[in-house]
Amino acid sequence: MENNDRKFMLDAIQLSMDNLKQGGGPFGAVIVKDGKIVAAAANSVTNDNDPTAHAEVNCIRKACAALKTFDLAGCTIYTSCEPCPMCLGAIYWAHIDKVFYGNNKVDARNIGFDDSFIYDEIDLPIDKRKVEFIQLLPEEAIKTFQTWIEMDGKTEY
Amino acid sequence: MENNDRKFMLDAIQLSMDNLKQGGGPFGAVIVKDGKIVAAAANSVTNDNDPTAHAEVNCIRKACAALKTFDLAGCTIYTSCEPCPMCLGAIYWAHIDKVFYGNNKVDARNIGFDDSFIYDEIDLPIDKRKVEFIQLLPEEAIKTFQTWIEMDGKTEY
Repeated sequence: MENNDRKFMLDAIQLSMDNLKQGGGPFGAVIVKDGKIVAAAANSVTNDNDPTAHAEVNCIRKACAALKTFDLAGCTIYTSCEPCPMCLGAIYWAHIDKVFYGNNKVDARNIGFDDSFIYDEIDLPIDKRKVEFIQLLPEEAIKTFQTWIEMDGKTEY
Repeated sequence: MENNDRKFMLDAIQLSMDNLKQGGGPFGAVIVKDGKIVAAAANSVTNDNDPTAHAEVNCIRKACAALKTFDLAGCTIYTSCEPCPMCLGAIYWAHIDKVFYGNNKVDARNIGFDDSFIYDEIDLPIDKRKVEFIQLLPEEAIKTFQTWIEMDGKTEY
């Protein structure tokens, strides 16, 4: 582990601690490219009335705005807690190269957050989940995908 | 299936189709509460340079802004495609009651989207994933969780 990795993780942890004073959740993250922090953010779910505003999602959005791209290949994220499934998905969609995390999902569960529950739910067949998932009108929905495939000049991601 | 469910799903599908003309991805969603649409959104990843801007995430953000809450209990989401892990996580964090979807994750993979790949990655042990996940400084990170537990008057979510 490089000293820089420890330094950036301490930055993420400091954000998580400072966020408590702002009335936010105990989570912080920084994104680094070429040895420099390009974005830093804390969880703002309750302050922003946005259940998607986890530290990692906020940080990805800020990094993309700063770098003017939807592709964070070449970036590393340092997050004070292991990403939940939503944030893991966001990290993959953003093509971030590497993830350092402090607390893990069991630690998160132990203080009352649902990360482990959502990981468990994802593993269940769709008809066994707590939230009901129902497929409807696939024969209509597929038409958009067919149109997408046939389109010229689309921006893929 | 009620007629209203079909109508709302057709709205989501129409958003997905209309979005192609805006240069966006082939995905749309609406959120309904008490029989009325409270938010409607399409995917804006490429147009907004935001890899988290899937239709469902955009729609959850809009619904929360409209209803001034981070808790969408009592709401149903209609999405033109089965939610990816990021959006599934967002739906759970938002406490949405029920999900109707049109296309499924195999349909999404067939037109070049990574949904299935990310589902597969979540199931792997952390050291087998394509993206490297490394735990670092947990003894520092846990201090924020300890402080959170001991805090009075915090807003839980």
